[in-house]
Amino acid sequence: MTKQFTFELNATDGAARTGVIHTPRGDIRTPAFMPVGTAATVKGMLPESVRATGADIILGNTYHLMLRPGAERIARLGGLHAFMAWDGPILTDSGGFQVMSLAKLRKITEDGVRFQSHIDGANEFLSPERAMEIQRQLGSDIQMVLDECPAFPATETQIERSLALSMRWAERSKAAFGEQPGRACFGIVQGGVFPHLRQRSAEALIEIGFDGYAVGGLAVGEGQSAMFEVLDAAVPLLPADRPRYLMGVGKPDDIVGAVSRGIDMFDCVLPTRSGRNGQAFTRAGTLNLRNARHAEDTAPLDAECRCPACRKFSRAYLHHVVKANEIIASMLLTWHNLTYYQDLMSGLRAAISAGTLASYAADCARSWAAEVETLSD
Amino acid sequence: MTKQFTFELNATDGAARTGVIHTPRGDIRTPAFMPVGTAATVKGMLPESVRATGADIILGNTYHLMLRPGAERIARLGGLHAFMAWDGPILTDSGGFQVMSLAKLRKITEDGVRFQSHIDGANEFLSPERAMEIQRQLGSDIQMVLDECPAFPATETQIERSLALSMRWAERSKAAFGEQPGRACFGIVQGGVFPHLRQRSAEALIEIGFDGYAVGGLAVGEGQSAMFEVLDAAVPLLPADRPRYLMGVGKPDDIVGAVSRGIDMFDCVLPTRSGRNGQAFTRAGTLNLRNARHAEDTAPLDAECRCPACRKFSRAYLHHVVKANEIIASMLLTWHNLTYYQDLMSGLRAAISAGTLASYAADCARSWAAEVETLSD
Repeated sequence: MTKQFTFELNATDGAARTGVIHTPRGDIRTPAFMPVGTAATVKGMLPESVRATGADIILGNTYHLMLRPGAERIARLGGLHAFMAWDGPILTDSGGFQVMSLAKLRKITEDGVRFQSHIDGANEFLSPERAMEIQRQLGSDIQMVLDECPAFPATETQIERSLALSMRWAERSKAAFGEQPGRACFGIVQGGVFPHLRQRSAEALIEIGFDGYAVGGLAVGEGQSAMFEVLDAAVPLLPADRPRYLMGVGKPDDIVGAVSRGIDMFDCVLPTRSGRNGQAFTRAGTLNLRNARHAEDTAPLDAECRCPACRKFSRAYLHHVVKANEIIASMLLTWHNLTYYQDLMSGLRAAISAGTLASYAADCARSWAAEVETLSD
Repeated sequence: MTKQFTFELNATDGAARTGVIHTPRGDIRTPAFMPVGTAATVKGMLPESVRATGADIILGNTYHLMLRPGAERIARLGGLHAFMAWDGPILTDSGGFQVMSLAKLRKITEDGVRFQSHIDGANEFLSPERAMEIQRQLGSDIQMVLDECPAFPATETQIERSLALSMRWAERSKAAFGEQPGRACFGIVQGGVFPHLRQRSAEALIEIGFDGYAVGGLAVGEGQSAMFEVLDAAVPLLPADRPRYLMGVGKPDDIVGAVSRGIDMFDCVLPTRSGRNGQAFTRAGTLNLRNARHAEDTAPLDAECRCPACRKFSRAYLHHVVKANEIIASMLLTWHNLTYYQDLMSGLRAAISAGTLASYAADCARSWAAEVETLSD
């Protein structure tokens, strides 16, 4: 196992790439999907089960962890990996996005952002330096710079002003990250749906120099075609020898489209949150297990899937436990959805290696059309 | 594997016994604790995890299953074992107790009990014949007669009248059970805290003839010493060659006391429900993980326990996930509590075999006194 953080590119197919990120805590096969482990748990899953789905790396949320149980406490307890019993790599976000979406009474200044905890209303403060300090205390393997996440829609002037602040914060974040052998610091390209601002952001980050580059500020309501246009403009500007991470994305077809455009890493709450809401992603499309048509269906959720929900139980059983709000419904559907996402990533990696990504993507799109049910939110 | 339901008694120690109930679906080592799988799931556990705790048999609730998803539906789907992916034996209650504790607008007649579903208010009816039909449709291995469960406290006159009805219902239940090779039908001794009524009940049931005998109407508020007095009076009246089942009991010390008095089988929601409430049963006593004193405790819940909660996580982590209402808190503490209960049963079986039950019971009582925290309800 390496002692350094390195990225090995093994094959390309058009703009798409497959490779391995080597870290002291283990390898991350790319393109990679990172299950979200918000509050030191991937909701409804034991760590060994997350690993069994095929995940090489998980994501932890700085915002949630700083509020409860607190970064200093996790540090005293030996770091996030030991605390939550996950020995693989962990990427942590900077808290910026959750401050925007969850916290109350936000006040942003050049220095940082003051806000009130959504848990107990306590006054909190996050600056680039504090965000990096927290991620270091957690022991995160991939640490994200603090950025400002503007709401969507925003005017070009708003985005330009926000971007300028985010780039100054990126520089302070990198300085605060300092030297942490084996760990990585990623910058985040902002700029909304404006290609020239995305370009300005990418150039500013490359000038600072990061171990990897994320594309942020997407999947906030702009729609898939606008998102793909941003990727078409931004991804070619990023260094080919560093991992590229599309934050907070997405649905299976978003992922396939983004991989085709050269993205290497993803995270999204969709497979876990949807699972807790009775919704399943399958090879035949998206299903809502709440629907009465599943009540006496003895078929498995997805006949090709290797997860416990599909190997041991019928759609009829899953319908029953979803309707009865049983914990096992969240457990099984989360496990299934994460397995489906990991199998999709595995399929994408194999297709890129074989140079058959276009036909793999077309096969996915065709099979997803078989069974599509309206999903609730 | 046997094709018949038989009970093999292997050793005794005072009134306590250890043995094996042989069923076509597998052996049940006694004294046995049956985890409660109310609505076709032991809450928060996958079936293979329930098995891993050491459980040989689980309990299913007729009342819940008849309302949702319905006994006829489960029969069409291949029976309860296939539906919930538990291939070991299942004991089902008759629904009588839940009708008393959960249903609305109960009306009891000689024929049976009319009530409204607590789920949707639908009018429902349960008679001895219907209770047995449902249990047969579920495919239950051990089926319980329908009895009337009087509230506590009740006068001697009330208990006497209720008991008479329950004994007439027991006879009708046995007739409705009919012949089901490999499956068993158990009678239920009622009679409140009145020894002569318990005796009358036991004699009436033995006259009918059952494959096993339960003691019902306890753990309803009478207290441990009254419960033990009833067992002292009732258990010696029951045939030694049939399993004896104390329904709905109990805390670890209740179980040790009842085993010492000759009980072979137990069920209780305590380990599962307490687990979901952040409470843990350990070798050192009962713990409430919500308490702040656990917040930075790196020790495991129970250093001698083999469950994932104890092998992989600290008390500090369990405290955090309980406070954050994370699903993994329910999963881990349920797994732990069921493991603790099964290890207690295993210890009791070994002690009875070795003729050392009294010292084992004294050791348990002494170790439970080490850490006792107030438990919420």
